[in-house]
Amino acid sequence: MKAVVFNKELKLVKNYKKPVPQKGEALIRVSLGGICNTDYEITKGYMGYVGVLGHEAVGIVEKINDPDQSLLGKRVVSEISYGCKKTDCPYCAEKLYRHCPERHTLGIWRKDGCFAEYFTMPLEVLFEVPDNVPDEQAVFVEPLAAACEITEQLHIKPFEKVVVLGDGKLGLITALTLNAQNIDVILIGKHQNKLDIAKNQGVETHLLNDFTIEKKYDVVVEATGSISGFETALALTKPRGTLVLKSTVAASKEFNLAPIVIDEITVLGSRCGQFGAALRLLKSEKIDFSPLISEIYPVDNVIAAFEKNKQKDTLKVLLKF
Amino acid sequence: MKAVVFNKELKLVKNYKKPVPQKGEALIRVSLGGICNTDYEITKGYMGYVGVLGHEAVGIVEKINDPDQSLLGKRVVSEISYGCKKTDCPYCAEKLYRHCPERHTLGIWRKDGCFAEYFTMPLEVLFEVPDNVPDEQAVFVEPLAAACEITEQLHIKPFEKVVVLGDGKLGLITALTLNAQNIDVILIGKHQNKLDIAKNQGVETHLLNDFTIEKKYDVVVEATGSISGFETALALTKPRGTLVLKSTVAASKEFNLAPIVIDEITVLGSRCGQFGAALRLLKSEKIDFSPLISEIYPVDNVIAAFEKNKQKDTLKVLLKF
Repeated sequence: MKAVVFNKELKLVKNYKKPVPQKGEALIRVSLGGICNTDYEITKGYMGYVGVLGHEAVGIVEKINDPDQSLLGKRVVSEISYGCKKTDCPYCAEKLYRHCPERHTLGIWRKDGCFAEYFTMPLEVLFEVPDNVPDEQAVFVEPLAAACEITEQLHIKPFEKVVVLGDGKLGLITALTLNAQNIDVILIGKHQNKLDIAKNQGVETHLLNDFTIEKKYDVVVEATGSISGFETALALTKPRGTLVLKSTVAASKEFNLAPIVIDEITVLGSRCGQFGAALRLLKSEKIDFSPLISEIYPVDNVIAAFEKNKQKDTLKVLLKF
Repeated sequence: MKAVVFNKELKLVKNYKKPVPQKGEALIRVSLGGICNTDYEITKGYMGYVGVLGHEAVGIVEKINDPDQSLLGKRVVSEISYGCKKTDCPYCAEKLYRHCPERHTLGIWRKDGCFAEYFTMPLEVLFEVPDNVPDEQAVFVEPLAAACEITEQLHIKPFEKVVVLGDGKLGLITALTLNAQNIDVILIGKHQNKLDIAKNQGVETHLLNDFTIEKKYDVVVEATGSISGFETALALTKPRGTLVLKSTVAASKEFNLAPIVIDEITVLGSRCGQFGAALRLLKSEKIDFSPLISEIYPVDNVIAAFEKNKQKDTLKVLLKF
């Protein structure tokens, strides 16, 4: 089968071995995939990963190695991690597979990814896509779930003021998701054309240069994807407020931690999320992700797709299989 | 009156003007004061503070400028900050005066401190000391309240494992306080003689060099007073666990924030606390602070007392008035 493989360099392999579903797994034929910045980071060496890339996809279940055949033929999306499922694993018990010490993560850690004609994943992390949700919306379920993770971790009260910092994919999806949950959210960014995507769907937006930096927001989400975003986020968080860290930036920077103590700030690391809430939001059609799609490439042009993803003004690049 | 004043240099002033209690304030005659590392930091320029030093003291109320005279003649301790008390200040409404934007802080910010024969503070931040608590224990109420602040901010469940990192004053008082609240706590430090102070009062203690660093603790309190403690604390915090930052270190260091996101760690800044819980603990006699007292100096020897405070093996230095 065709597969997008990273092994020192990124390439399209035409005769990659088709995976065989293990006990409890399904084989999924991929329809559409989404390139995430993590994929790009992997091509620069992140996680030391070698194998098929990709962790965002929609596909059809073609085969199931399990007595439960209920998902056969269904259109599905897959959470990205699965765990040991041992009875004494507190993370697996709460379906927090991404924190299981023995986890496998699709296209990132010990598991071939979904940028291929086929991939396999265990049934417990597969979810049927509602009929009214087209592939081009469903393919956003993983970053959408990561945005929903914020309200899983944190109780944001109806009267609290929330700022999302950053108007890239991460910031836009986060702001749209919080807004769709009726949270009082402001999106701050540097690009009017990107901010307008959220503004057109009802989010209050401001250019960073026109915005007064004051320590008065209850919750500030750092979603700039840049290490310098942290200090701006801290300057916006009120005493006893919460700074949600969403950007995974591999770089280091010099920080003074004293303001966190003095103002008793909570810094909350926030990564992926479970798909339940994300699928309900997709079904509700409260968010339209299509303005975030910069281009759809056939998988044969994957190298060009990754090049496009790197460009400054690009938002989401999709891969058609 | 005699007063310990910092103005470019630290000195004992013998004819400092005795303060006059303003409306709603009490005049307190100081019996005993405690030197905190913040006092030492101020003598190095912290907060740009000029005035009478000191924010830890026990004394007797000699005069009250208010119809409510109930504390007159009583032995009291004072919280260190008071706020604007305006009806629309959310911090004052919750008695979180230390976060009021218009706050005054005893011996630290816009308010002469308590290292003097007399100081004044508003009645609402004064608390009577229970009869069974001697001055030498009561003088620890402020750092004790700062330790109690952790359980005000964070719900630590009975089955959760807590590590306190650092065996200086801050770490010892924090570990003893958590232990007195029946929390499952381990104290990690570098000095057996200091660890023994906590061990003798029932705390499990380990030398850092003999302790296995694993990401398995639910709550890790960074109380080393050193900026390098942060990374050790992070290496002990389990995924989705909480790292409580207690050290106020003015220095900066290069950090990589990605592990906080990947493991979805909560970093909780924690500063001072309200005195209610601390006074209940003092009254219960569950903690004996006397092994933490390194030496008691008469105020006339304050320069020597500050020198003693700087020495590596010193814990608490007290000032007798």
